[in-house]
Amino acid sequence: MPKTAKEVKDEKGITAEKDEFSEWYTQAIIKADLADYSAVSGCMILKPYSYAIWEIVVNECDKRFKKLGIKNAYFPLFIPESLLRRESAHIAGFNPEVAWVTEAGNTKLNERLAIRPTSETIMYDSYAKWIRSWRDLPLKINQWNNVVRWEFKHPIPFLRTREFLWNEGHTVYASKEEALKEEKQILGIYNEILRDYMAIEGFISRKTESEKFAGAEFTKAIECVLPNGRVVQGPDFHHDGQIFSKSFNIQFLNKEGKKEHAWQNTWAITTRMIGVMLAIHGDDKGIVIPPKLAPIQAVIVPILFDKTKEKVLKEAEKLKDSLKEIRIEVDAREEYSPGWKFNDWEMKGVPLRIEIGPKDIEQEQVVLARRDNGKKETVKIKDAENKVKEMLDSIQEEMLKKSEKKLKESMVSVKTMAELEKEIKNKKVAVAEWCDSRDCEDWIKTKTQGAKIIGINEQQQAKGNCVHCNKKAKHVIYIGKSY
Amino acid sequence: MPKTAKEVKDEKGITAEKDEFSEWYTQAIIKADLADYSAVSGCMILKPYSYAIWEIVVNECDKRFKKLGIKNAYFPLFIPESLLRRESAHIAGFNPEVAWVTEAGNTKLNERLAIRPTSETIMYDSYAKWIRSWRDLPLKINQWNNVVRWEFKHPIPFLRTREFLWNEGHTVYASKEEALKEEKQILGIYNEILRDYMAIEGFISRKTESEKFAGAEFTKAIECVLPNGRVVQGPDFHHDGQIFSKSFNIQFLNKEGKKEHAWQNTWAITTRMIGVMLAIHGDDKGIVIPPKLAPIQAVIVPILFDKTKEKVLKEAEKLKDSLKEIRIEVDAREEYSPGWKFNDWEMKGVPLRIEIGPKDIEQEQVVLARRDNGKKETVKIKDAENKVKEMLDSIQEEMLKKSEKKLKESMVSVKTMAELEKEIKNKKVAVAEWCDSRDCEDWIKTKTQGAKIIGINEQQQAKGNCVHCNKKAKHVIYIGKSY
Repeated sequence: MPKTAKEVKDEKGITAEKDEFSEWYTQAIIKADLADYSAVSGCMILKPYSYAIWEIVVNECDKRFKKLGIKNAYFPLFIPESLLRRESAHIAGFNPEVAWVTEAGNTKLNERLAIRPTSETIMYDSYAKWIRSWRDLPLKINQWNNVVRWEFKHPIPFLRTREFLWNEGHTVYASKEEALKEEKQILGIYNEILRDYMAIEGFISRKTESEKFAGAEFTKAIECVLPNGRVVQGPDFHHDGQIFSKSFNIQFLNKEGKKEHAWQNTWAITTRMIGVMLAIHGDDKGIVIPPKLAPIQAVIVPILFDKTKEKVLKEAEKLKDSLKEIRIEVDAREEYSPGWKFNDWEMKGVPLRIEIGPKDIEQEQVVLARRDNGKKETVKIKDAENKVKEMLDSIQEEMLKKSEKKLKESMVSVKTMAELEKEIKNKKVAVAEWCDSRDCEDWIKTKTQGAKIIGINEQQQAKGNCVHCNKKAKHVIYIGKSY
Repeated sequence: MPKTAKEVKDEKGITAEKDEFSEWYTQAIIKADLADYSAVSGCMILKPYSYAIWEIVVNECDKRFKKLGIKNAYFPLFIPESLLRRESAHIAGFNPEVAWVTEAGNTKLNERLAIRPTSETIMYDSYAKWIRSWRDLPLKINQWNNVVRWEFKHPIPFLRTREFLWNEGHTVYASKEEALKEEKQILGIYNEILRDYMAIEGFISRKTESEKFAGAEFTKAIECVLPNGRVVQGPDFHHDGQIFSKSFNIQFLNKEGKKEHAWQNTWAITTRMIGVMLAIHGDDKGIVIPPKLAPIQAVIVPILFDKTKEKVLKEAEKLKDSLKEIRIEVDAREEYSPGWKFNDWEMKGVPLRIEIGPKDIEQEQVVLARRDNGKKETVKIKDAENKVKEMLDSIQEEMLKKSEKKLKESMVSVKTMAELEKEIKNKKVAVAEWCDSRDCEDWIKTKTQGAKIIGINEQQQAKGNCVHCNKKAKHVIYIGKSY
């Protein structure tokens, strides 16, 4: 017995509107079958549907990394405490959220082992042994792995979990100049993945001294703005200068036979970005996945009546076979009504739905329904192949345009603290100018009740005065609340 | 100044012969740049060269798993102690080697968290929630991840490390019959990877009750024999029957509306197999990698003299471009002599070396040197493309044949305990018959000083008497020392 729309809504539809962001987000994720809570507090399960998205992100990044001559490796999950403590700024940053192994079997360990929150220390200990001369450089190694940061705040699927998946690139160069060239390459790759795959427009900013990565000389990140105005730090690039090479004694003989400390970078993209993507594109009906990342790009829903069932299913399968290049499924389940299925696939964010019924077959046509804007179009079956591809391209493009528009709308220029406080309350990201003092940075945080300087806009030159102290400004900055 | 062969040998050649297996193995692995020790006792680093091999294994398995409708997911690294203890046989098997997290940041945890030694318990806790009716079955989920088993024995690169990488497939079926069908599919895939990629001939055996996986109804594994006669358990398949579904309450409503416990399997291949492969194929010069798994399938070594250098390098690059389909490199390093490079690439196990010098170019020829048998062949440049492909195919095939031969030679039938003891001392795997009693199994272990029943040969029927008690035998078995 097919269920009514009412029953569906009661049973599994999303009951929150997107404006109630927190509630909407959790429902949309869980009900789309992307993730689930686990028996470990703060750790989530990536179910097959979200893991398939992650696999596409990994493959696309990985291909590009490899073209740059970056090679994958695998270093241990554990870091001896003494090693983690070797770089003082680094341990200060991570210490509060390290998970510690203290026992194995029935034995108490002599030294605590950290579960890697990031792998600088375990990797650079080896780098110091492997690097002898300029011939060993550049050394460009990446890892795809799991890391643990024991957050004590309320967990949010993808966005804030104690364990997450990521890549961590760790490269070593013979000169600062060479190392710095990598910034454009890596942030270029990440930006391409965000724009062309995730359909997300972010903005690149340089972190302030107090917000940069623990142990870095500087940090740049692609920042993304969620519908609730919160800013999430997306993929990032850290230039570590010689900070770690000095703590870990990574030295090489240069061409003149002299010893020098090497120059290092690290960079990462995480499963957090899946959450960002879902948050940005979703609507009241649930999530919307951009076609290039969608595990299922199109779903064919055959309209089944007893008499014509066989014929319609046959046509549906034929259509599917003609669309081999795209990731497509036929929903032939008989226990659900077409209306139920429409809701179900919308909730799962599948970019395109293809409806085919007995009347359509008579007229040699199918109906294409876009998930992003709900528009329907009737097309001839013979044109379906081209039309479907065109429409997927168009959806991908429109989603990015929408994201660009939203980003623009989320930003407001402010000149005074009063304006700043108002716009932060309005859930905006404020663009202001700043004198570069830590004191003003702290005051901004206090007076906005938790908004912070997200980062510095390096593309623009400051012309006016600091939003807080009114002295001559040094930087154009972004201010917002973050996760 | 190019180095002499003597200098090379002194500096980095392998000083142990393969007969001194332990010493040879470690040297061959480390000097081929495959792995390295880390700051964490018992944990190794997979360097880019071995990780690239693992990536091929993962991709080839993963493609095949996906064709069977198996989907990848990611479950947490941590398992709460209470959950790990839920299945009694399971915890009894793993307890001695679990690494425990007891602290996070500055907080002592309320409950210890195990680092997953395997993920049954954390996954099945979720499966119990996800599975409601026969419509939810089969559920076929796989993970590629890292696991930790805190061995207290001496670590051996790849073969025995406290952390390793693997896949763990965890499938759930509505009936025992359906579940059992998976055995052939999965062991078929693993055997294909072993034979066609790793060029390894193993033998499939069913584990005895005392050796099966902790929590399984039965375990079958592809067993591999190392040059020192030790047997290593390769990829395996465990049928768990309803053991876990009863402990974890994984029930479904069948088509008749009745509740039933589900039927489960688990299966895995690990990075251990890289070690097995290297151990089996290597020779006194170092490792030998089968072409289909070789990150570098062929290396072109140009013979460089000052006058003709440019011309030779140009030809080498041209040759490389004509061989785009294979993974190939030109070794243009000028600081090493050709002889040094030959040794170096042999030590790295690259299947094929292509030598090209000024005289070769005059005669429009190159020299191909096989790593597996050392044979050299001169071929016309115009034929090189076909010849290289042919030769790589031939190397792959010959390596498998050699492995088949070695496996045969490693096995000896025995009828009496005296024969058994003798053959175990000879580093053989003994084929015997057994009455199926635990008592005789234990006596076999004691009298052979540590050899054990590797498993039961299900292809053959017992005809004689038990090698230990001389009563009528039930099974044909393999006996050997294992890692």
